[in-house]
Amino acid sequence: MTHTLILLRHGNSDWNQKNLFTGWVDVLLSEQGVAEATRAGDLLAASGLKPDVSYTSLLTRAIDTANIALDAAGRAWLPVKRTWRLNERHYGALQGLDKAETLEKFGPEKFKEWRRSFDVPPPVLDDDAEYSQVHDERYVGIDGEIPRTESLKLVIDRMLPYWQSDIVPDLAAGRTVLVTAHGNSLRALVKHLDGISDDAIAELNIPTGIPLVYELNDDFMPTGPAKYLDPEAAAAGAAAVAAQGAKK
Amino acid sequence: MTHTLILLRHGNSDWNQKNLFTGWVDVLLSEQGVAEATRAGDLLAASGLKPDVSYTSLLTRAIDTANIALDAAGRAWLPVKRTWRLNERHYGALQGLDKAETLEKFGPEKFKEWRRSFDVPPPVLDDDAEYSQVHDERYVGIDGEIPRTESLKLVIDRMLPYWQSDIVPDLAAGRTVLVTAHGNSLRALVKHLDGISDDAIAELNIPTGIPLVYELNDDFMPTGPAKYLDPEAAAAGAAAVAAQGAKK
Repeated sequence: MTHTLILLRHGNSDWNQKNLFTGWVDVLLSEQGVAEATRAGDLLAASGLKPDVSYTSLLTRAIDTANIALDAAGRAWLPVKRTWRLNERHYGALQGLDKAETLEKFGPEKFKEWRRSFDVPPPVLDDDAEYSQVHDERYVGIDGEIPRTESLKLVIDRMLPYWQSDIVPDLAAGRTVLVTAHGNSLRALVKHLDGISDDAIAELNIPTGIPLVYELNDDFMPTGPAKYLDPEAAAAGAAAVAAQGAKK
Repeated sequence: MTHTLILLRHGNSDWNQKNLFTGWVDVLLSEQGVAEATRAGDLLAASGLKPDVSYTSLLTRAIDTANIALDAAGRAWLPVKRTWRLNERHYGALQGLDKAETLEKFGPEKFKEWRRSFDVPPPVLDDDAEYSQVHDERYVGIDGEIPRTESLKLVIDRMLPYWQSDIVPDLAAGRTVLVTAHGNSLRALVKHLDGISDDAIAELNIPTGIPLVYELNDDFMPTGPAKYLDPEAAAAGAAAVAAQGAKK
């Protein structure tokens, strides 16, 4: 018996459009993002895949993407599980900064290191900073300390325990699972599933708004390559994500 | 210590506008319903009330109302619990029928009995009927048999155990609870909380889209009258609901 896992990266947000580092800042979907989410739901419906449970991060852009997609797929009624462990990578002191300006100011090497190195987090975000989340009530009571910055490695460290404790048991119970999350929390999961090396994961770009489908064996590892529900759009989307930051 | 409970009836739906009996048929919000849901979220935000957990039925019009209201209130990230026990009353063989035609065909006495009697359910809906839900996968595995018709009494019988088993423990833990549901599932809860008699409950009309706030004591009963966040609009809304069915 195989298990079906569907990953969905939230659509374009206001800050994607403004080319700002977002991280844990709770920005909203842009109009384009809403359209992408609707299309994701249409793709799900057309695929015949029927998710049984919907996982999201605690960030509104992922939650709204799931809500819109499930509305479009006629499955708004799914049980919902939310967790900060699926949140985007905390971008530390970069949160709220313009990507192009950051690139210019710190140079391409530092910029690439912060965006794409496996284990070097950006500088810590001050607790008094405008875009800090330390006083955000949604994170009251999360186990351990709320992050002030994260590398991809740290995202994996906080995401994988949840994969094991919550998502895998749903898959084991025969449920098709939809996970709607972010570029880096999904990258963390894909790295685990596809056994991608610490070096190579930097080059993996997950496009927004296109469901990515895994069939998993009883060890909850892939039986073959994952498939995007719209491979052509996915390839174009991944290229667009890869080009981010260079944009002025 | 008191506990805060907020009740919200979903906004106007496509079938409200068409004047059809809806029950468990999964119709969508009308544009007016979307606007009502947004306003409910604005009222919540302005009130300073901060729900900690969001309960909904399994019907899309209640789910979308909660999603839209919580988006508007900046609280999309709340944990969500869904249950068929908060569904609208199952209207049996009336589901999908025009209210004015039903009134004309069966006369005002039968019509009022079906709509407003405490314990007389409408005729049973056939399992093969277009608007039956017996084959709807969202109800697979609900404990007991899926209803084919319900009186308000039957709604109370399936709703109250959930109130005790799930909602009360959340309130007891100090959480402010938002329940987004339907005219009759909310009427069932209000009957319990306000100790309304079987006869008088027929005359209680809960307006759509206006949060109704209870402060509850440690027995989870009201410390005083519940308050609508917009009392004037609530009074007008209740009158409009009362007039339904007479409409041609």
